[in-house]
Amino acid sequence: MNAAATGTRKPLTVAVVGATGAVGHEFLAVLEQRNFPIGTLKLLASKRSAGQKLRFGGREQVIEEMTEQSFAGVDVAFFSAGGPISKSHGPIAAAAGAVVVDNSSAFRMDPKCPLVVPEVNPEAMAGIRLGQPGGAIIANPNCSTIIMLMAVNPIRQAAGVSRIVVSTYQAASGAGAAAMEELRSQTVDVLAGKPAQPKIFPQQYAFNIFSHNSAMQPDGYNQEEVKMVKESHRIWGDSAVGITATCVRVPVMRAHAESVNLTLKKPLGEAEALEVLKRAPGVTVIDDRGNNRFPTPLDASHKDDVLVGRVRTDHSQPGGVGLNLFVCGDQLRKGAALNAVQIAELLLR
Amino acid sequence: MNAAATGTRKPLTVAVVGATGAVGHEFLAVLEQRNFPIGTLKLLASKRSAGQKLRFGGREQVIEEMTEQSFAGVDVAFFSAGGPISKSHGPIAAAAGAVVVDNSSAFRMDPKCPLVVPEVNPEAMAGIRLGQPGGAIIANPNCSTIIMLMAVNPIRQAAGVSRIVVSTYQAASGAGAAAMEELRSQTVDVLAGKPAQPKIFPQQYAFNIFSHNSAMQPDGYNQEEVKMVKESHRIWGDSAVGITATCVRVPVMRAHAESVNLTLKKPLGEAEALEVLKRAPGVTVIDDRGNNRFPTPLDASHKDDVLVGRVRTDHSQPGGVGLNLFVCGDQLRKGAALNAVQIAELLLR
Repeated sequence: MNAAATGTRKPLTVAVVGATGAVGHEFLAVLEQRNFPIGTLKLLASKRSAGQKLRFGGREQVIEEMTEQSFAGVDVAFFSAGGPISKSHGPIAAAAGAVVVDNSSAFRMDPKCPLVVPEVNPEAMAGIRLGQPGGAIIANPNCSTIIMLMAVNPIRQAAGVSRIVVSTYQAASGAGAAAMEELRSQTVDVLAGKPAQPKIFPQQYAFNIFSHNSAMQPDGYNQEEVKMVKESHRIWGDSAVGITATCVRVPVMRAHAESVNLTLKKPLGEAEALEVLKRAPGVTVIDDRGNNRFPTPLDASHKDDVLVGRVRTDHSQPGGVGLNLFVCGDQLRKGAALNAVQIAELLLR
Repeated sequence: MNAAATGTRKPLTVAVVGATGAVGHEFLAVLEQRNFPIGTLKLLASKRSAGQKLRFGGREQVIEEMTEQSFAGVDVAFFSAGGPISKSHGPIAAAAGAVVVDNSSAFRMDPKCPLVVPEVNPEAMAGIRLGQPGGAIIANPNCSTIIMLMAVNPIRQAAGVSRIVVSTYQAASGAGAAAMEELRSQTVDVLAGKPAQPKIFPQQYAFNIFSHNSAMQPDGYNQEEVKMVKESHRIWGDSAVGITATCVRVPVMRAHAESVNLTLKKPLGEAEALEVLKRAPGVTVIDDRGNNRFPTPLDASHKDDVLVGRVRTDHSQPGGVGLNLFVCGDQLRKGAALNAVQIAELLLR
């Protein structure tokens, strides 16, 4: 729903926490493009960034240092300044009456905080309204989870899903603006015959791929993989779906790709699967076998829709219940800022 | 087996067809490093490359134009000049008495030509000897197939494998030296703010990934994916193993990576799987969860061994029969030239 359609609602006071980061930057772009009904915009960041200026709505806006008093009168606060800041200041913002939409993982498994992909489980936000005393905290899922569910949820609605095997091809942006710069500067160095200088990532990123850099559990799965499993279960309210993930960083700037293998509960042909995906909101199908033209991260970059292609029956599973998909989505947009703004738009209904 | 150990055998006449290509170059490096017993080396290529010189064994060697007469007296001919050249001249070389080791896909599904990974199915070469009238043609498998089987075969021997879901992260080298140069030059252009110039691949390769560029079947699988299925079945002599593959090109120069999900016939714990892999010839395990250190394509580049890590139980499969692996292997070396030279070494026993 586009906020422009909401009619007479009074403009809101909106805070963006972490406005100088890669996702913060995208928050401002998405809020502006979607004409979110902002009366007052507060850009909040650490003391280090306070005083810097960012453009929004055609004028310059000064970044303020976030304090415990920053959230008085705020209707909606978008947080994207990392888990510790969300944990410390999210509840303060909510206590001041704001609806917090949090892009970190701090509250994703908190049963009091809905975890929402608007196309998948908007009902999880039932009962949350703007202006309620005590506010609310709504968690924005992990980027890889959102992008996968955008493609898999319509298939699940049509035929059920009992198991998912997913391998990701993840962009630099998921680790922030500095990681994107590390990919760029390392690539310059390697092309010049100089050694790569790993700073954010432990391994060389230029012309290389590596296992996702998030913390490792004792069972050998990194946190990104764990998030894909646990968040999908929570969003679907169904932990019986078997999910196994392998998360890999590839030298791409800002869109993730995912190779997804599904076991369905009942057979679904390729043609039916394509029809289901073509009808799904927020999904664009690119599946041109004749021209070997399928989604790429570059196609998905700066796009709102998640791109799906390579839709084909998995012959290794008997009975027509196997299906392969290849999915690409902009990590900063649907994987982060867009999904969060769409969550806030649900409050305008 | 190292050829140096073969004792009194008389040095062989060896031909390398396609000596100027990326794999041809690697053939010369591997033959030299492994001290393959070469008496006479013939470098063969198209008329266009004839007269060029390449270094081997400390001296310069002139490339000859390949003709139908080129194979008289040749004991072993390594072919890597594309399928059409293999189809036209492989049988000519064999008729002249050579054992042809062919790196193209021309003979891989020919029941008269064994398809061999020396660590997996050396027995397929039984009955083939040097100097036999009518020679022989032995097919070198596809790079992605070899790299996968190097990791999966030891697990299969220990616990059986009923299904494989594999997603690849494939390097430029699989499409030849010009593709590696395309990745380099496109990256230079993109970093300079210029548009990428796709020539070999239809899509931008710099900072992008795309579905493998091989020809597409009507069922939506590209030839690279089909090869991984059919060649694995043939090498194992077991087409009951369910295999589904998604093959993707990533902006990496010369080593492939593969995310492999296995369904085993009987449970195999992580510790046992690691032990099995550590004992496997041609495999090096890199699996350091504490330091988040696992195989990368850069680690595998210019290495003989296939690297395996991220060995972990797949919790989405009940009964302990699910296992995930991440595999990296040098596409030009074990994925092509090294495997072919190892095939020839089996003839020296």
